Parts: sequence; structure tokens; C-alpha cells
Amino acid sequence: VHVRVLGSAAGGGFPQWNCGCANCRGVRAGTIDAVARTQESIAVSACGARWVVINASPEIRQQIEACPALHPRGPRHSPIAAIVLTNGDLDHCLGLLSLRESQPLVVYATDRVRRGFTEDNVLCRTLERFEGQLTWRPLPLGRAVAIDGVDGPTGVIVEAVAVPGKPPLHLARRLGAPDPEDNVGLRVGDVTDGALLAYVPGAAAVTDDVRAALADAACVFFDGTFWSDDELVRAGLGDRTAAAMAHVPVGGPDGSLDALAMLTAPTRLFTHLNNTQPLLRRDSEERAAVLARGWDVAADGMELVL
Amino acid sequence: VHVRVLGSAAGGGFPQWNCGCANCRGVRAGTIDAVARTQESIAVSACGARWVVINASPEIRQQIEACPALHPRGPRHSPIAAIVLTNGDLDHCLGLLSLRESQPLVVYATDRVRRGFTEDNVLCRTLERFEGQLTWRPLPLGRAVAIDGVDGPTGVIVEAVAVPGKPPLHLARRLGAPDPEDNVGLRVGDVTDGALLAYVPGAAAVTDDVRAALADAACVFFDGTFWSDDELVRAGLGDRTAAAMAHVPVGGPDGSLDALAMLTAPTRLFTHLNNTQPLLRRDSEERAAVLARGWDVAADGMELVL
Repeated sequence: VHVRVLGSAAGGGFPQWNCGCANCRGVRAGTIDAVARTQESIAVSACGARWVVINASPEIRQQIEACPALHPRGPRHSPIAAIVLTNGDLDHCLGLLSLRESQPLVVYATDRVRRGFTEDNVLCRTLERFEGQLTWRPLPLGRAVAIDGVDGPTGVIVEAVAVPGKPPLHLARRLGAPDPEDNVGLRVGDVTDGALLAYVPGAAAVTDDVRAALADAACVFFDGTFWSDDELVRAGLGDRTAAAMAHVPVGGPDGSLDALAMLTAPTRLFTHLNNTQPLLRRDSEERAAVLARGWDVAADGMELVL
Repeated sequence: VHVRVLGSAAGGGFPQWNCGCANCRGVRAGTIDAVARTQESIAVSACGARWVVINASPEIRQQIEACPALHPRGPRHSPIAAIVLTNGDLDHCLGLLSLRESQPLVVYATDRVRRGFTEDNVLCRTLERFEGQLTWRPLPLGRAVAIDGVDGPTGVIVEAVAVPGKPPLHLARRLGAPDPEDNVGLRVGDVTDGALLAYVPGAAAVTDDVRAALADAACVFFDGTFWSDDELVRAGLGDRTAAAMAHVPVGGPDGSLDALAMLTAPTRLFTHLNNTQPLLRRDSEERAAVLARGWDVAADGMELVL
């Protein structure tokens, strides 16, 4: 499986447009040891020619241009054969509306995520200009699915696993109580190779099911939104905790670093990094702590082959 | 009036994600004399400290980061005091949904544009998380309005002028027949200075009213989407003419270059350039032709003071 990291920041990106925290100021001024990041998304491929994009970030146009593997090879063409959504957050879905230049799209999502984006959303008509422009395909929980792209099978196999989360903020009133289909992690493989990628950019908790979904992966991407539960509050940037936003922090006694200590995957990366996350700084003690435990931090432009 | 060109390309940007035309291939490979452009938007300011953004492109986050004048000056802050929309096209509105990090926004638009974006659009709830997060203000036709920003008056004065256009593609069925409020040009000034900016990024025709709206401006931005009416058809990229897309071409006997020959503004710029537009190439004969007539071509990052 070929992997390209298109984006590795949480919603809002790094730096965030209206944020002047130490990290955002520092990366703009070039005074901290950190690089800018667009909003979290990866592309995976079995063959290297046709790609499955996981999550469609608002910055997808910029991300495509930064990734030559995703450039068109004809007058009207895209190597993007299909898109898979892990949840209905706008930083994962809004980019669909930027893929509207009369290009056929295939999108895999749970019913709940598909309905959250398409119902009561007149903007979606921009993707319904001709028969077959936008094709939604189901993403069942706990069952491996061979991803069929615009031009047929991609050779990529995806299994969605329910991961603790919640409905996106803008749908909270509409969707009501959380549902296992609100938020998934993906186990990604290909038809010719046993190596498995586990992609879990958002998780409210590390449960036994989550651990089981990651245990046999050769490469794990996991929710690195926050280092600590009260990170935003202490920085004076808001009153919401990581728990209130359905993200388990990386650090501390209840953090994912400890909860996932059993993992043996050679490559383990935190992604979906909020702009306040101390892991963004290459010289932070938090970064040293995760490196010492065999983890690293995802960055835009990373290329992996499993 | 201070002006920053945030983006100068038509919907889809340059290069466009699924386009392999000669221009898109060439700019990606660096083999033509052209620079990449994000989707059309400008920022204007009376004082240089607080800014009014005209049109919210899907790439607004990238555009803000590329423009130091728009960087925050506090932990949670934005120098963007207000946003003005010229029509409801997604390349002008989608960026609103990327300005969602609990920052108060003031948006000026005609009733028709506001309703086109907010009605039957569940995504807008992301901008309605607290009282006063998103404030819409009317943009009347033919009357100068002092733009009041998040923190009070901006010193920028805007007059919207009806310009021939049509409803955005995704709203065609919903909105029915075209309406003068579908598409406007803006006459922009400030309270302390007589110099006027005319901003007309989309126009289906050059009428006497359009000419009158531009006649006394010191700086004109005008619709440069296409050079010729059948540009997409001849390039094999579609079956729609410039007229069908409500854009008057720049060249030819019915083009805007001839129709606006009476303008005497020292600065005249074509903007909203489609990726097929030959004006994108600095060495094209079309570029030489507009330069000879006193026009130039807008580019991302341009700074002007009127």
C-alpha cells in the first residue's frame, strides 16, 4: 500500500486563520521548529496509479497540487478513483464541494455520514449536474470492502471500524444522540499484500475494540489532536476540553500513548494535530516523549510504502 | 484604499485539479511563463489595519496565510472586519464555512445571495454556534453603504451595482429566472479619499450601466474568465460557451476589451481567469494585446494603493 499524507492538522489547519497562540505565531514568523500543516487527509493506492483519498479536506485543491501522484494525466482526468470519509466533520467533507468540475466521484461513507452531508444541503447540487457525477457507496461497519473507483476496482480494501466519537457540531441538533456510524477508523489493505494500514484520525477513547483494530497493523495513524484534556482552556483559547470535543489526548495517565502501549507496528504516527498541540514543535519535550515510545508525528508530504 | 489581491483565478483555480490542458500542464511543469493562482478574492482597507474581504473563496485559509496583513494580532483575532459577496457562486461563498473557529463574522450580500447560501443549507449551522457569530447585512443596489465591521465602522464605503449575470449553477432550479440581485459589481471607496475602486469579477455583458459604474474609477478589476466565447469547446474541455456561463469574453468584436475602450482608469486588471485563458501566459499575443490597450492581468499577491 502506497500512502501520501496530504494533510495532518485538525480542523482549522496550522496555523489557524484567527489564532495567535504561541505555535501559530511562531510558525508564521519562523521562530519555532515546526512546519505548517493543512487539514488532515491521506491518499492510498495499491498500484501507485489510481488513488483512494481518505477524507476530503477544505484544502483539497492545494493538497492535490502539492502531490504529483494526484495530478491529471489527460485533458479532463483525475487519478482520484474514490474517496472514503471517516466522519461528517466539515474538515473531512467540505472538500467534496471543491471537486465539482464535472468530474465523476465515488464516495464511501456510512449512511449516517452520507445523510449528514447531503440532507438539507443545497450545495450538494453542484455535484449532481449529470447522471453519475456523484456516486455514494455504503461503508459497512466491521466488514472489509473492495473499493470500486470511478473506473472499476482500485485494489484497495477498507474495513470501517466504529470508534468512539460524536456527530459533527453543526449536526448535533439534527442527529441527536451519538451513533456507532458517526465516526469510524479504517483498516486499509490491498489485494496483493498482507501489510495493513490503520487510520484513526479521530477517537474519543481507546477501547478494547479500538486496540483490536490497530493490533495487527504495520502502520498506525492515530488521533493526535490534543496533548492534554485542558489544552485549549489553559491557553485561554476556549472553554472546551478535549473530551468535550471527542478527542482522547495523547499525554497523561488517560492518554492514548499509554493506552496504546501494546502496539508493535513499526510505524506509528499521530495526526489531526490541533494548532495548540505541543507535538508540533520538533524540540518539545512532548515530542521527545513520543519518539522515545516509538511514535512520530505525521507531516504533510510524507510518503510511505507498506 | 489599500488593496490586496488574494486570488485571481476563476472557479477551480489555476491549475484546476482535474485539468490537463496546455496551461494547467505547463504551469505544473514550469514549462510556460505563467504563475499559479487561487480563486478570485481581494481584501480592501481604508486604514491598513482592518480589512474588508470581497468574496470568500474555498482557499481562503491559504490566502489569509499568504497575506500578512490578514494575520491575527491576538490569541483569537482577525483583521477581517467584514466580508462582501458579489454573487452566490461557490467559488465566492464556500470559504465562509472555513471561517468557523468561533470568530464573529459580518457578511454583506444581496437578499438573493444570502438566501441562496443559507436556505436549505445545514452546513451554515457551523457559523451559528453562538448569538452574533454570523451577522448578515443587506447590500442594496445603487446605494453607497458604509461597511460596519465586527468592531464598528471600517471606513470602507461600497456601492453594489447590478451587473448582468445568472444564479449559481447549483441554485438554477431553485431560484428560477435571473434577478438583478444575483450578481453585482462593487464601487469601493473610503471616507477620506476620492479614489474609487471598481470590482466586477463576473459580467455576462458590458451594458451602459456597467460602463457608467466603471467610468470614474481609478482602478478597475473586470471579468477576465475567458478570452473567447468558444474557448472550452475548442479546447475539447466541455460544451459550454462563455455566454452560457454568463461571462463576456475579453477578446473579439463583442469582447470587453473593445466594449470598455472608453475607460481611462490608470489601473485596469482582468481577474477571475479561467485555466484556459491565454492571458495567463505572459508571452501570449493576447497578453500583449491587452497590455497595448492599457490593461494588465491580476495575480495573487498584488498590492495596490489608490
